[in-house]
Amino acid sequence: MAGSTLGTLFKITTWGESHGKGVGVVVDGCPAGLKLCEEDIQQYLNRRKPGQSRYSTPRKEDDSVEILSGIFEGRTTGTPISMVVFNKNQRSKDYSEIAQYYRPGHADLTYDLKYGFRDYRGGGRSSGRETIGRVAAGAIACKILDQLNIRILAYTRSIGDITADPAHFDRSEIMENPFYMPDAEAAARAQEYLEQCMKNQDSTGGSIECVISNMPAGIGEPVFEKLSSNLGKAILSIGAVKAFEIGDGTAVSRALGHKNNDPYTLSPDGKIIKLSNHSGGILGGISDGSDILLRASVKPTPSISQEQDTITKDGRAVQVVVKGRHDPVIVPRAVVVVESMAAITLVDMLLCSITSNMDNLERFFQR
Amino acid sequence: MAGSTLGTLFKITTWGESHGKGVGVVVDGCPAGLKLCEEDIQQYLNRRKPGQSRYSTPRKEDDSVEILSGIFEGRTTGTPISMVVFNKNQRSKDYSEIAQYYRPGHADLTYDLKYGFRDYRGGGRSSGRETIGRVAAGAIACKILDQLNIRILAYTRSIGDITADPAHFDRSEIMENPFYMPDAEAAARAQEYLEQCMKNQDSTGGSIECVISNMPAGIGEPVFEKLSSNLGKAILSIGAVKAFEIGDGTAVSRALGHKNNDPYTLSPDGKIIKLSNHSGGILGGISDGSDILLRASVKPTPSISQEQDTITKDGRAVQVVVKGRHDPVIVPRAVVVVESMAAITLVDMLLCSITSNMDNLERFFQR
Amino acid sequence: MAGSTLGTLFKITTWGESHGKGVGVVVDGCPAGLKLCEEDIQQYLNRRKPGQSRYSTPRKEDDSVEILSGIFEGRTTGTPISMVVFNKNQRSKDYSEIAQYYRPGHADLTYDLKYGFRDYRGGGRSSGRETIGRVAAGAIACKILDQLNIRILAYTRSIGDITADPAHFDRSEIMENPFYMPDAEAAARAQEYLEQCMKNQDSTGGSIECVISNMPAGIGEPVFEKLSSNLGKAILSIGAVKAFEIGDGTAVSRALGHKNNDPYTLSPDGKIIKLSNHSGGILGGISDGSDILLRASVKPTPSISQEQDTITKDGRAVQVVVKGRHDPVIVPRAVVVVESMAAITLVDMLLCSITSNMDNLERFFQR
Amino acid sequence: MAGSTLGTLFKITTWGESHGKGVGVVVDGCPAGLKLCEEDIQQYLNRRKPGQSRYSTPRKEDDSVEILSGIFEGRTTGTPISMVVFNKNQRSKDYSEIAQYYRPGHADLTYDLKYGFRDYRGGGRSSGRETIGRVAAGAIACKILDQLNIRILAYTRSIGDITADPAHFDRSEIMENPFYMPDAEAAARAQEYLEQCMKNQDSTGGSIECVISNMPAGIGEPVFEKLSSNLGKAILSIGAVKAFEIGDGTAVSRALGHKNNDPYTLSPDGKIIKLSNHSGGILGGISDGSDILLRASVKPTPSISQEQDTITKDGRAVQVVVKGRHDPVIVPRAVVVVESMAAITLVDMLLCSITSNMDNLERFFQR
Repeated sequence: MAGSTLGTLFKITTWGESHGKGVGVVVDGCPAGLKLCEEDIQQYLNRRKPGQSRYSTPRKEDDSVEILSGIFEGRTTGTPISMVVFNKNQRSKDYSEIAQYYRPGHADLTYDLKYGFRDYRGGGRSSGRETIGRVAAGAIACKILDQLNIRILAYTRSIGDITADPAHFDRSEIMENPFYMPDAEAAARAQEYLEQCMKNQDSTGGSIECVISNMPAGIGEPVFEKLSSNLGKAILSIGAVKAFEIGDGTAVSRALGHKNNDPYTLSPDGKIIKLSNHSGGILGGISDGSDILLRASVKPTPSISQEQDTITKDGRAVQVVVKGRHDPVIVPRAVVVVESMAAITLVDMLLCSITSNMDNLERFFQR
Repeated sequence: MAGSTLGTLFKITTWGESHGKGVGVVVDGCPAGLKLCEEDIQQYLNRRKPGQSRYSTPRKEDDSVEILSGIFEGRTTGTPISMVVFNKNQRSKDYSEIAQYYRPGHADLTYDLKYGFRDYRGGGRSSGRETIGRVAAGAIACKILDQLNIRILAYTRSIGDITADPAHFDRSEIMENPFYMPDAEAAARAQEYLEQCMKNQDSTGGSIECVISNMPAGIGEPVFEKLSSNLGKAILSIGAVKAFEIGDGTAVSRALGHKNNDPYTLSPDGKIIKLSNHSGGILGGISDGSDILLRASVKPTPSISQEQDTITKDGRAVQVVVKGRHDPVIVPRAVVVVESMAAITLVDMLLCSITSNMDNLERFFQR
Repeated sequence: MAGSTLGTLFKITTWGESHGKGVGVVVDGCPAGLKLCEEDIQQYLNRRKPGQSRYSTPRKEDDSVEILSGIFEGRTTGTPISMVVFNKNQRSKDYSEIAQYYRPGHADLTYDLKYGFRDYRGGGRSSGRETIGRVAAGAIACKILDQLNIRILAYTRSIGDITADPAHFDRSEIMENPFYMPDAEAAARAQEYLEQCMKNQDSTGGSIECVISNMPAGIGEPVFEKLSSNLGKAILSIGAVKAFEIGDGTAVSRALGHKNNDPYTLSPDGKIIKLSNHSGGILGGISDGSDILLRASVKPTPSISQEQDTITKDGRAVQVVVKGRHDPVIVPRAVVVVESMAAITLVDMLLCSITSNMDNLERFFQR
Repeated sequence: MAGSTLGTLFKITTWGESHGKGVGVVVDGCPAGLKLCEEDIQQYLNRRKPGQSRYSTPRKEDDSVEILSGIFEGRTTGTPISMVVFNKNQRSKDYSEIAQYYRPGHADLTYDLKYGFRDYRGGGRSSGRETIGRVAAGAIACKILDQLNIRILAYTRSIGDITADPAHFDRSEIMENPFYMPDAEAAARAQEYLEQCMKNQDSTGGSIECVISNMPAGIGEPVFEKLSSNLGKAILSIGAVKAFEIGDGTAVSRALGHKNNDPYTLSPDGKIIKLSNHSGGILGGISDGSDILLRASVKPTPSISQEQDTITKDGRAVQVVVKGRHDPVIVPRAVVVVESMAAITLVDMLLCSITSNMDNLERFFQR
């Protein structure tokens, strides 16, 4: 089954393996007339680039993007935008060992069970490099949102037990530390914690939060195409994500109704607003105009230098050490991926929701 | 946008409002030759029926299903199975008051913002009755899974702070208490807690777990159509669900790599199995053959008899009490909905995954 | 595979068999606020009703439609519109004979080969009654088009060798003869011809034309979602249709470029218009603002009272006569089906095409 | 709206403009384990390459394909296959003139009306070069069909009034003349006719036929996903195609039932076969096991060197001559495109149809 395409009107199709010729994406359904250049994309890719700090793999990749189609005289033409990042680092390594056994926590075994064999070089299609296509597409989605004055922001909420303190939330701090945390003090503690993880040849998980503000109301559909369920699908499709929460998330299971309901009031300019936002900006699957808040829980990097039990392709029990230097935590580089997937979903649902009533339609086609 | 259809090869389309003529579903893509009768469906619907205990609304609905198409001589024909539950209770009540204001925690406001007006009777399309279609379809999906020897089981994991103790997990207990909890002692405490909620004119949240066992490996696709992301979308599309977790879920954010990775070993009969199952049966989006474990967090019933602040349609701030008797907790009746949505997703992905390699294909078409 | 759903934003799902409990359709994605009642639907259904003249089957069916959801206070709510026509005539007949052999020209054999068995009563799902759902949905699509001032008109172009003369095209004549021909003289000749067919226990084919006028430009997408290819799919999905033509259709294969190209000129009010319309209103898959013209070729009714060679389920060669009275021609009752499928496709593509450029989008979301 | 993706399980996404950096396609859902190399693709691309005879444009393009992903050790991995043909000829020409007016018969005007502007260089996205992606994907589909012993063959049926004589059908002749006609004598007459067209600075239309043999029965779905309607959509999405016919096509409108029905008989080895094939191998939308026969009518090349009336972007009436050398007929180069689109559709529907009954499913999942 084809599984690398996402979206209804704004549709992305990613392709590529870690050690093939390159990775890329085709973005189809982007409205015509959007100003777009490679630098717009590159900025987003740089946020997920390896080798930025000692807490991410030192693989030296430029990850420089090329736009192959869909742009003319600096603007999108409405036709598919094909983007590629050629792999420059793919020859060198010897993968004969990794080909022989199944790394715990990776997709090695499931690919073999599904397909009969796999491209084992650097994880093949299940490598983190697969997210390059997502981020390149996300950069375009973010630019559309920006044009519509919708703001999206993702950041690291926690690494292991260290959580950014909402009371000290500082937006400007996010780009100032290697973890994209909105709290300098938490970032400092995260740094110590990660040093310890590395010393122990271990890795850790964490969580990412994403806030969308100035959101128009009425986006999302009842029943299956809820804004929340589509955001959930998009975020849960990111490799290491094991949980998705909207608004108060898992905490609602312990909440009382009189607290969890968000009461309505009138804003000074007469609009209906909510006095709290436990719902995370979505009611009945449809945006209510307040901020959308979502959260992703990311598992620890599966590649660790400790010895682990596994089985070889030919059925022998062995103990293995996954060689190479590994990120002790996936979270910081995944922040821009979460932002991208949320933006892609929002743009698609914005486009789909325009036609929900006849007034809109008639206004549109009155000629 | 059409939002009431879900699935690729096994496709369901639900319709209906709380106080319209009825609610229903069309199940398309069900393989031919499955034995199926109305009683198969009714059993599942009975599990979500109101009025079963004093912890659920006393609305007297038979909710009796009629199959209108797709069955011939007791077996599915491969063509769409249309099912309907006619509403019998829809005339009586006076909805003139509820029509005037927006109930906190409900979709009243967002429907009006999206569509310009709404069917306010009993919540219209956003009513819990919308899940009848899901459960009727789920009954079919469960029967297919059963035929393939795949077992699916959902139950209440927690109500408020009271959590079923995994150490005392007792499958046979699930159908013995009104909360579908697998732990009699926890169920007893939940009962006391709910009495208190009702006394306080309040409601509470909870969580539901679902386990799929004897799962074939290789189901699900890399990238966007991961088994986990599609399960997530399906579960998050259920009205009151605010979080979805697979395997260890949010706990992975605090885990260490050497603990979170599931080591492989050989089973006595020489199959590769995992020594633990933190991943919840899915690696790289593809089933690994071990149990799939997922969890949904459900918010408290938004309808409560306490006074709440809100705004009327014509813009006045008012305090309202949502009249009628309300379930103090949604969870017990949602258990079968979670099971249904998981089963529907599994069947669809089973059908889609068959064609993943040429060996399968050639075996199939060798004539 | 699910095959009974069509459309992206305006989505229809049909269900039902000739001799099951009923046939129906769920229309999802209809914009909210459209005035709609059962009478709007019934008018369209009456145009395909059997027993209207001696050239159609005398089956006495009221085919009266019930709307089960999606309407509130006389207007569409934006949620799925479920419609059903209960079968009233389904018990009586003896189908034991037809169950034993494969009728030439019908889908009996292919259903058995695909599904292992079939609902043989009256053709089951492959019966002409399946089009009731299409027409009910088409009635809604036509009402939307009407609201947008887009006009759609289908009629019988030819029956056998008798073709309505374009030079004598008379719109008002269409509803005046039992064949929906826009030419009284051709209709009279068709009548004679059909009498002869019936005398010979034979049937005949014909063709249907559909014109859409006052069409907005810019509808349809390049490449696969061309307006022409989606119209083609929709029309070719009607049971007996074996050819689809747009504009000059098959005649282009014999045309010269200097004649086939439509030159542009300016209309008196300064709009760019075409001096001819060989292209049928579509260039590069996108509507150009001139009339859309399409044509369907319909095969002769396969049920005939002549003796035919066939094979029984258990493999014996036999000669059979398909009992009962049969329409000598499918075309007249298929006219409204062609109109419906064209309208459904147009509405879906109108909704999908709104978001093709940023100007539209910004205008829409400027708040 | 995204319009460049086609297919359900076997999904292709094309991208690229005539004079951008390149054109390409992503093929997703190709089963793993198929032997595939660039040479397999190149062979198909060479069949549509320009400059092969004096009846096609002399543009010197190698059109050499690169596979960027989805292949490992010479076999498909089951993940997306990304293919690109870089444009080598795109800089040179001056397009300032063509930018100013709308060429009759081209998509210039409709792109401007839809998107607000267009990439006018060489037709941009609406150029015939867009078919390169289709043919590259088609080469893979054809290889899958071949592996399943299904044979597909397309050829030129007619050019202008000159039609290959079915009585002289000679398969081996197809690759022997520049028109891919299965009849040497007709090809010779076509050559003379085209010389005349060129002398007159004119172009001509033609038709293409495609036959699929050794087809398994049971492929295709009732109602909307009929094999015939999906083949129709695929073929009608090819730029210049204005009509699609299956089996006897438009001729059925003049046929009598007793002739049009294909009687059944038993083959010497006891299989049910048809004595004729007016239906073109499809009954009720489902393949019946006999040859599938389809036909496409292709309009004359719109670019001609004669003077034509048109309008400029700024609204002036002008007479224009489309400069450059143009193919006097599109048909020969479109033969492989028709074959490709048919093959792509067949493979998708083969994959989708496997799961139509429980026997298939249980056989599959019995472990």
